Amino acid sequence: MSYPKKLTEMNREELSAFRDEMQAVYDGYKAQGLALNMSRGNPCREQLELSVGMLDVFDDHDFMSESGIDVRNYGMLDGIPEAKKLFSDMIGVGEDEVIIFGNSSLNAMFWAVQTAYNKGILGSTPWSRLDKVRFLCPVPGYDRHFKVTEFFGIEMINIPMTPDGPDMDMIESLVAEDDSIKGIWCVPQYSNPDGISYSDDTVRRFASLRPAAKDFRIFWDNAYCIHHLTDSPKLILNILDEAKKVGNENIVYIFGSTSKITFPGAGVAVMGGSHENVEELKKHLGISIISYDKMNQLRHVKFFGSFENMCDHMKKHMAIIEPKFRLVCESLSREIAPLGIGEWTEPEGGYFVSFNALSGCAKHIVQLCAEAGVTLTGAGATFPYGKDPEDRNIRLAPTYPPIGDLKKAMELFIVSVKLASAQKLLAEG
Amino acid sequence: MSYPKKLTEMNREELSAFRDEMQAVYDGYKAQGLALNMSRGNPCREQLELSVGMLDVFDDHDFMSESGIDVRNYGMLDGIPEAKKLFSDMIGVGEDEVIIFGNSSLNAMFWAVQTAYNKGILGSTPWSRLDKVRFLCPVPGYDRHFKVTEFFGIEMINIPMTPDGPDMDMIESLVAEDDSIKGIWCVPQYSNPDGISYSDDTVRRFASLRPAAKDFRIFWDNAYCIHHLTDSPKLILNILDEAKKVGNENIVYIFGSTSKITFPGAGVAVMGGSHENVEELKKHLGISIISYDKMNQLRHVKFFGSFENMCDHMKKHMAIIEPKFRLVCESLSREIAPLGIGEWTEPEGGYFVSFNALSGCAKHIVQLCAEAGVTLTGAGATFPYGKDPEDRNIRLAPTYPPIGDLKKAMELFIVSVKLASAQKLLAEG
Repeated sequence: MSYPKKLTEMNREELSAFRDEMQAVYDGYKAQGLALNMSRGNPCREQLELSVGMLDVFDDHDFMSESGIDVRNYGMLDGIPEAKKLFSDMIGVGEDEVIIFGNSSLNAMFWAVQTAYNKGILGSTPWSRLDKVRFLCPVPGYDRHFKVTEFFGIEMINIPMTPDGPDMDMIESLVAEDDSIKGIWCVPQYSNPDGISYSDDTVRRFASLRPAAKDFRIFWDNAYCIHHLTDSPKLILNILDEAKKVGNENIVYIFGSTSKITFPGAGVAVMGGSHENVEELKKHLGISIISYDKMNQLRHVKFFGSFENMCDHMKKHMAIIEPKFRLVCESLSREIAPLGIGEWTEPEGGYFVSFNALSGCAKHIVQLCAEAGVTLTGAGATFPYGKDPEDRNIRLAPTYPPIGDLKKAMELFIVSVKLASAQKLLAEG
Repeated sequence: MSYPKKLTEMNREELSAFRDEMQAVYDGYKAQGLALNMSRGNPCREQLELSVGMLDVFDDHDFMSESGIDVRNYGMLDGIPEAKKLFSDMIGVGEDEVIIFGNSSLNAMFWAVQTAYNKGILGSTPWSRLDKVRFLCPVPGYDRHFKVTEFFGIEMINIPMTPDGPDMDMIESLVAEDDSIKGIWCVPQYSNPDGISYSDDTVRRFASLRPAAKDFRIFWDNAYCIHHLTDSPKLILNILDEAKKVGNENIVYIFGSTSKITFPGAGVAVMGGSHENVEELKKHLGISIISYDKMNQLRHVKFFGSFENMCDHMKKHMAIIEPKFRLVCESLSREIAPLGIGEWTEPEGGYFVSFNALSGCAKHIVQLCAEAGVTLTGAGATFPYGKDPEDRNIRLAPTYPPIGDLKKAMELFIVSVKLASAQKLLAEG
């Protein structure tokens, strides 16, 4: 059975018949009692196995950092030198421009916002003392970013995404005129959830931003910097290098982690930026901790040896998850495209496929899937305050389920999209 | 040569002769070019070796928590159940009254203060919105506690210590009348640096505190809860149990860690309190992190198996460090006591010996030691704002140096005390 006709071109009778047919198919899935999860960007078990060798690196009982410090003990607030080397390469900063954190870059970002909020940045007024503080949020984006700014009562402004990255005209104009705008959340390589990599022009314009607020910072969450799904990835420009070229190196805080390189629960997170930014942040950091887990830092260094080896390691991840992304995109192309009831990105890296349904359908689709046993990221989660103004966007996370489960989950997702779309068009009609 | 006479009983001539003799001895040490460190409570290498077996617990490649979660992946914000069991036993709370953190209890404390400061506690006004926020600080105390409250601009009030714990009369009276007083820092078992364990009466009075501020919390840093230096330790009362008896269970936040049980750089930190406190804190915690390092949690659980085994493990630590404490106390008894130029505690646990010199001598003694190559904790560090009003207190940390080095460092310390004291008395005379 095929539906070469777009749903919007069907008459009421055709649409009703389609709706009834989809309801029956949907009910069939519901009867199966599925229990599948596509909600978060979790690596699957096979991916976790790739790094288990890391647990043997201390079999020689050599716990000395090249600095002469025993990594089991206290000290080295900002990380051991060999970890600084490895991870500064990863996020594209110098070894003196980096701080190594614990297992969570989200925690590093929260801490950086907290620091600006409570203590200010390089002598500026702490954000907590200002009447209004605002952040720009390219949408759709990462829900956990938005929750951090919401926690501090920071007002969030939606910025539309384009295929080249966030709308730079809008950003440049807003930050130039409004000094209450203190930051922007960015996932520049394979954005979450769109999978968009910022163009060279976009990165250069970010690097050259001259905001009214001197304490404006770009929160550059390069979470997927080496998380490619093709053999010939296009890398974004190095924003710190570009910013230095125009004498603007304090504009950006850069974040990264090995959560999706080694272990999500036990990786290493890292933050980088200009020497001036990093030196100030280190002073504050020493109040909140003596040192992060240096054993885990050395574990990573010993396991990888070099950044090149880390990049090679990512090819093993690609081999496991690329077929899952292909399955998602191919089934959407086959089943949804001809009906004209959805759009999506075909990412070349990262962890998500961003699906846009007909307006007003996203919540309903997610609910239909939930009621039939497939958990998706909540509709609206990809927007500040959980409010998708058009109720369209759904983030699909294909990495975690085994491919058989993913196939089944996508079948249910697709029938839910069809059913919800038909109901929507009939209700409007 | 012996000096049975107290320095305060010497005449000027005797004192001058003594000073000259000590100067010569001191110069002799200085010429040796020592480079020793007694500044921080770092475990020594032998102590670190005690827990190296923990690195082999995953040799079976079994990474499943009893909850069915793979500890390598995301999730379990507040910790895996088996870690909650182990560490709730350690700090004396229920398994539903605990949050497992990363490697740093200081970080957990910073976060808890940050949360109260930015979001308030159980509906109260965030501390950041108040004109004045104050904390009580038993002195001498832990410098890193004081730095946290200083970071947030919280005014600190010194509370004298007694052999039974902080001066409870003063605390009860202050908190009853002043609702700007929001908290107190406590190290109840083997206090830092005095090594004082709070009496049962002190714990009960803390548990029964009825502060004017509803959002007052006791920050009960039970850092040395099982860190005994005797075979028959006296344990403090369980404050949460006592608080429950009087319907006051929200009064206390309890902290602990394995920093000095397994690895200072790679242990597990924990926080406990009433169900109501913990539930609210978990909601905030989820904004700042997805999960802490659950592999390290399971590593600890598999290594110890039970809290009883953890306590047995501490006896191995005691065997290593008790002789170091004995050396410090015996050399002070032998060399300083007869001269009447210092007082100190003889701790039955914890990590420090607290030495009180003649008033006005602490900075000078620390400087003399530093100039001859022995680093001590900075004088004043044990007081808020680094200001010891009497310039008397010096925190000695005997655990880290090998015993031969410790002996040499103590020799230098003792001659520095003698020299500084004689110079002081001569200058006054």
